[in-house]
Amino acid sequence: MIPATGAPVVILVEPQLAENIGMTARAMANFGLSELRLVAPRNGWPKKGVREAASGATHVLDGATVHATLPEAIADLTCLLATTARERGQMKRVLLPDAAMAETAGRIAQGEKVGVMFGRERVGLTNDEVSLADAIVTFPVTDEFPSLNLAQAVLLVGYEWRRAAGLARPRFTGETRALPATREALLALFSSLEETLAGAGFYPPEKRAIIARNMRDMLHRMNLTEQDVRTFRGALRALERRSRRPPPEAV
Amino acid sequence: MIPATGAPVVILVEPQLAENIGMTARAMANFGLSELRLVAPRNGWPKKGVREAASGATHVLDGATVHATLPEAIADLTCLLATTARERGQMKRVLLPDAAMAETAGRIAQGEKVGVMFGRERVGLTNDEVSLADAIVTFPVTDEFPSLNLAQAVLLVGYEWRRAAGLARPRFTGETRALPATREALLALFSSLEETLAGAGFYPPEKRAIIARNMRDMLHRMNLTEQDVRTFRGALRALERRSRRPPPEAV
Repeated sequence: MIPATGAPVVILVEPQLAENIGMTARAMANFGLSELRLVAPRNGWPKKGVREAASGATHVLDGATVHATLPEAIADLTCLLATTARERGQMKRVLLPDAAMAETAGRIAQGEKVGVMFGRERVGLTNDEVSLADAIVTFPVTDEFPSLNLAQAVLLVGYEWRRAAGLARPRFTGETRALPATREALLALFSSLEETLAGAGFYPPEKRAIIARNMRDMLHRMNLTEQDVRTFRGALRALERRSRRPPPEAV
Repeated sequence: MIPATGAPVVILVEPQLAENIGMTARAMANFGLSELRLVAPRNGWPKKGVREAASGATHVLDGATVHATLPEAIADLTCLLATTARERGQMKRVLLPDAAMAETAGRIAQGEKVGVMFGRERVGLTNDEVSLADAIVTFPVTDEFPSLNLAQAVLLVGYEWRRAAGLARPRFTGETRALPATREALLALFSSLEETLAGAGFYPPEKRAIIARNMRDMLHRMNLTEQDVRTFRGALRALERRSRRPPPEAV
């Protein structure tokens, strides 16, 4: 669950709504983050409704620590990133989430402890809070619709963390479930198909070779397995049998 | 807003909740997607509350088309991707969002029209619906917490689309707002600092050279601009003046 090598810490500064904190916990759990720190949550903690909003990711809430100030929350970190949508007049590196998490993965591999800070639902982080960060992370949203909600911002960072940490793998695969058919089987299918079509008068005489090659092209693109070839040849045989049967009697 | 070269179409199959459809429209707008197709929305369309949930991205709702069946909704596409969390027993390529959007960007650049299909809130897509797709997209979530809500899934696909289309740029930068100081200014700062510290008796005699070099190291890491150097030298001068002033009289 938690990679033995560690993962970034998520820090929420003065979060207010139970739903947002709960959904943040859920978004963290989706991508394998588990260390959550809350700085001076507004209107108290714990909050009614936060466990429901976490949809099962209550372990993140149970392990969350609460801090009175940001300096206290970040004391043990060796690198702090600040998420912000607005320019802050500070000469600080601005990173997109992929670059930020690639760098974070490198730092964590070196034994560092990295935190990513998210601000208040309405107003984000203050300039002073941003000044405590090593670098800024911003999202590549459009100018027309730049706002993400808190859980979405955390989700994108968690997603990029998982990719950067080399943990992004499909939970299942489809394609490699069987080997392609041998060339012997495939060529036998080519012959089968071409004879059946020839017998059905499909080819204009001068075009047989060209059309046959185009069809082989299509069949190659299907990446047919042995089973596929059997299915295809069975279908051809069924069509051939039917074409040799007398037509049904008119009623 | 809409890249002239096009963008993938988002297709929701039998979506039910107004909030989910509205938030999907918002997530699309965040990352520059605008073409939404709804297949047989449950309990009617339009839905009460959907415009509010779209938080300003109503242009996506206004442009959304409604289709009675999936085949109708995908007729003009040349490639269809199906998002699914579960294995479907079909020999189909399974792609993570980044690979899926990289391929999609390539196809769109070649003039193709690509759609990404998202299923019902509770049960996703049926196997028959998945069978109409060229390939599957799945999210690199953890096994323990694999569920994303509809708008989150759309958000991740939109985010990866923007990256793949070469449109992911920070909306501002911080670092390059001024050039580094010239070496002349920097060396003058080194001298200033070293003389001030020497005058304050900071260096143990045999260690002056080593400590001075370590400090130059630190100063290099600061990537000081001309303004930074002036600020730093001003601070040094203020400290020097203060150290030469007589101490305040005891009261």
